[in-house]
Amino acid sequence: MNTSLTPLVEALRPGSPDIEIARAVAMRPIMSLAEERLGIPHHALIPFGHYKAKLSLDYLATLADRPQGKLVLVTAISPTPAGEGKTTTSVGLGDAFNRLGMRTTTCLREPSLGPCFGMKGGATGGGRAQVVPMEDINLHFNGDFHAVTSAHNLLAALLDNHLHWGNALDIDPHQIVWKRAIDINDRALRHITIGLGGAANGLPREDGFDITVASEIMAILCLARDLGDLENRLGRIIVAYSRDGSPVTAHDLGAAGAMAVLLKDALQPNLVQSLEHNPAFIHGGPFGNIAHGCSSVMATRAALALSDVVVTEAGFGADLGAEKFIDIKCRQSGLSPDAAVLVCTLRALRFHGGADKTSWGMPNPEAMRQGFGNLRRHVDNLQRFGLSPIVAINTFDSDSREEIDLLQSMCAELGIQAVETSHWAHGGAGAMELAKALSERLEAGGAPHVRCLYPDMLPLIDKIRTLATELYGAADIALHPAAARRLQDFEEMGYGDLPVCIAKTQYSFSCDPQARGAPEGHRLDVREVRLSAGAGFVVAVCGDIMTMPGLPRQPAAMRMGLDDQGHVVGLA
Amino acid sequence: MNTSLTPLVEALRPGSPDIEIARAVAMRPIMSLAEERLGIPHHALIPFGHYKAKLSLDYLATLADRPQGKLVLVTAISPTPAGEGKTTTSVGLGDAFNRLGMRTTTCLREPSLGPCFGMKGGATGGGRAQVVPMEDINLHFNGDFHAVTSAHNLLAALLDNHLHWGNALDIDPHQIVWKRAIDINDRALRHITIGLGGAANGLPREDGFDITVASEIMAILCLARDLGDLENRLGRIIVAYSRDGSPVTAHDLGAAGAMAVLLKDALQPNLVQSLEHNPAFIHGGPFGNIAHGCSSVMATRAALALSDVVVTEAGFGADLGAEKFIDIKCRQSGLSPDAAVLVCTLRALRFHGGADKTSWGMPNPEAMRQGFGNLRRHVDNLQRFGLSPIVAINTFDSDSREEIDLLQSMCAELGIQAVETSHWAHGGAGAMELAKALSERLEAGGAPHVRCLYPDMLPLIDKIRTLATELYGAADIALHPAAARRLQDFEEMGYGDLPVCIAKTQYSFSCDPQARGAPEGHRLDVREVRLSAGAGFVVAVCGDIMTMPGLPRQPAAMRMGLDDQGHVVGLA
Repeated sequence: MNTSLTPLVEALRPGSPDIEIARAVAMRPIMSLAEERLGIPHHALIPFGHYKAKLSLDYLATLADRPQGKLVLVTAISPTPAGEGKTTTSVGLGDAFNRLGMRTTTCLREPSLGPCFGMKGGATGGGRAQVVPMEDINLHFNGDFHAVTSAHNLLAALLDNHLHWGNALDIDPHQIVWKRAIDINDRALRHITIGLGGAANGLPREDGFDITVASEIMAILCLARDLGDLENRLGRIIVAYSRDGSPVTAHDLGAAGAMAVLLKDALQPNLVQSLEHNPAFIHGGPFGNIAHGCSSVMATRAALALSDVVVTEAGFGADLGAEKFIDIKCRQSGLSPDAAVLVCTLRALRFHGGADKTSWGMPNPEAMRQGFGNLRRHVDNLQRFGLSPIVAINTFDSDSREEIDLLQSMCAELGIQAVETSHWAHGGAGAMELAKALSERLEAGGAPHVRCLYPDMLPLIDKIRTLATELYGAADIALHPAAARRLQDFEEMGYGDLPVCIAKTQYSFSCDPQARGAPEGHRLDVREVRLSAGAGFVVAVCGDIMTMPGLPRQPAAMRMGLDDQGHVVGLA
Repeated sequence: MNTSLTPLVEALRPGSPDIEIARAVAMRPIMSLAEERLGIPHHALIPFGHYKAKLSLDYLATLADRPQGKLVLVTAISPTPAGEGKTTTSVGLGDAFNRLGMRTTTCLREPSLGPCFGMKGGATGGGRAQVVPMEDINLHFNGDFHAVTSAHNLLAALLDNHLHWGNALDIDPHQIVWKRAIDINDRALRHITIGLGGAANGLPREDGFDITVASEIMAILCLARDLGDLENRLGRIIVAYSRDGSPVTAHDLGAAGAMAVLLKDALQPNLVQSLEHNPAFIHGGPFGNIAHGCSSVMATRAALALSDVVVTEAGFGADLGAEKFIDIKCRQSGLSPDAAVLVCTLRALRFHGGADKTSWGMPNPEAMRQGFGNLRRHVDNLQRFGLSPIVAINTFDSDSREEIDLLQSMCAELGIQAVETSHWAHGGAGAMELAKALSERLEAGGAPHVRCLYPDMLPLIDKIRTLATELYGAADIALHPAAARRLQDFEEMGYGDLPVCIAKTQYSFSCDPQARGAPEGHRLDVREVRLSAGAGFVVAVCGDIMTMPGLPRQPAAMRMGLDDQGHVVGLA
């Protein structure tokens, strides 16, 4: 086991651009790393270059009866727009566990091309807590998202083709709920009309494109147990309603088989390494709003069968990410985290306590104290699920000792351990205290099996109300009348036992991104509900959600290019 | 060298479905095949699974000074809608050359997902003349087409984003010539309006999607010499005109670097094997109408540096495929074929002689004799380029001895050798006579450097007229007035020295797909002209061309699926 950063990386000053640090690392060939670290035989891996591989589904099927490792869930307080470091913490923590001699694998989501060329940049961690090869993971990564895009648009094409050739299923063109998908930020494709130019070009109708990560197929890929389950779920996707109101599915269109064909390779988990040469599965990337925001069940299961410890993250703050991880991913798969980490930064706590973007980077114990309510509610919420988190303080050079001490003592008053981490600057060495604290918990048996927040049989509307009142601090929900009718329809159609997937801002417990801290007594406005019958949840849209982002005035794409050696520059 | 089919394949009865034959072959690991057969070191290959690999650009750069192999161009007479077997002949011929002990590589185009799920099915040869792994090559093949789609749509998004944020380049929204692209047959996306729903969603305007193979980026990928040339060509793409009439390029939008980043891996040629374990590069797949229809220059150059003989094909009949191969691909790259094969079937000759779809499969010497004029004109045309082809008769069980003898004697009268081939039924063994005939030519020095049909400095309109009158038998061309003005604009913009790329039906020398045989005295109607400044040609659209196909009433997709072992079924 190699637990030290290579000399070249050590040589790089802290704060070098992520891509330079990533490129300075001499990666280990993935085939030998997989064999030495996880005992995966060569024949079980499908190489994609020398540093990425997919795990064969046949091999995965042989792992079913293996003893399972311990699962550590990394979640966060309500983030600022800058993000609080869930991914870097997950990577750094995985490296730290490995330094402790515990065979540990990190499970992350795949980045989307859209934000990569837009504002956000890549999504492979940062500083000395990254997964590599950074460019490859950020671009096209083994074709998974392209496969989802293709399957999504094939289904759309088959739907319009069905309308064109006589509409034998009597689809109501006004009740088509399946849009198209593309993995680019492209606001001009949000609302379009298609089928123009005469009868040879299909039926004119309104349509739109979502970004690929918002596709139900992405959620399905991440929740499927195996290839058969994938194809069944694809078949259950509701694309439209017929004129008599009955749902029309991908199965009805004869599309599920071909979609499964397009997705069969994408279902194989992707194995890469951290900068410290520890294994990481990066697989699937459903949006955290319209979908459940967790990496794939297949990857988590594979990692648990192959490792002592598995570290995984869930999108956005714990009110969205951890809740969906438990109420959707764990509920459907039977998985259960053995420990949880709640990532916070002093910056975010100051922000929740009233500091703004210009001052959140400066020490401000009073604002931090004010903002602590946000952290406290996330802790309370996790405890409802049976999880008592360890708080990981993702520290910055500018953080003051006084604030850190204060935060730790405030956590201690809640009976919660809070530890400092500095994995961004120091790699796994910066997360040792966190790893040790967690390993004590795991050795003591870990958390009991997680408790979902509500039972399957609770009516859909009550599921939404439970979430709002018990986790978000809302007084009640306000359901638009059309949404209420639709929920009733879903119940009558037999989908009442599905979990709900809340789509709302990640910046607040409420629907109002400006309501920082721990707002109370507000009303959760449910504007619209959508049925994802293949993924297996009902989406409750609260406030505006964006399923197709736009590009900023100066997109990151304009700064990107290749240098003389053909290396990517400008990818952050 | 392994030149015999494996016993399992021998055991399969002739006429088994292509996918069954393909799957019955025990493929050889591509890394060792590459080393043993082409001397490619492991470090020069990027594996994609065990049976596909990309050749690194660094390694390709080291091949520049190697002695070059001989290049054999496989083209065909005007095809029937069933196709006459250029791909199977290319694969079978490559296998036959290897049986003769000549180190031979076949260079083919990559299949498009669109037709794969539509009507046509896959494009990896057939019978015992196939390249494998068949499913992988037909689906997602190493991500090349997805990269083209992404780069195409990123440019479109950056264009609309530019309009959205103030249109500093003063782009005329009525003069946007860059559409969007998707690798699906989807007629409903041919004519669309985008940017609807209010100011936050971009500028409303008309738009449309082309299939990915029709993207200028696909043509660029296939014509680029190296990564630098790729980025320069991408930058030259004209996406729109400003209100003062000047062209706006991808470079002006700051898009070329990011597009090159998306395409850097796709530029690496893909190496696979034939059923007889001989190497094949399958790389790029530009449409044969709107583009030049040839596999990549990078792959052809790599193969020539690594092999004694390279067999490659050019799309459609020789009037389109071979002409563009020479006047575009050879003109731009300096390549020159040393020999040419003109593939024909008796079926197609009967069709050109008046037989219809119901009878073209039955012996009919008189129709064959009548249809011979089509073959003769293709021979004449190839001789204008300095190529004297060998005619390959792609035989069927139903062909009569009498007809084959008659065809051979008619060819002999023209001084042309015509040989029977049966590679579909017998693999390389079925193309030995063809390989021997060609090897005699090659040993005698091969053809002189190819003569392009027209010089660079000929005005664009005269280039079109030369093609029409000298190759197609037309009396003249008829240029729509708007097209004539546009050609004048292109000349004034400095693009007068580009070659032209004719987009017309492949079923006839004329614009009328019903005019079979060797029509004369007709008029070539040029409806529209388009400038592909990055690819480096001017497209002359003659008659209706389809840059976005539709799906048939019963798409192939509806028959596709996975069996219990996760294997693809229904892919033909």
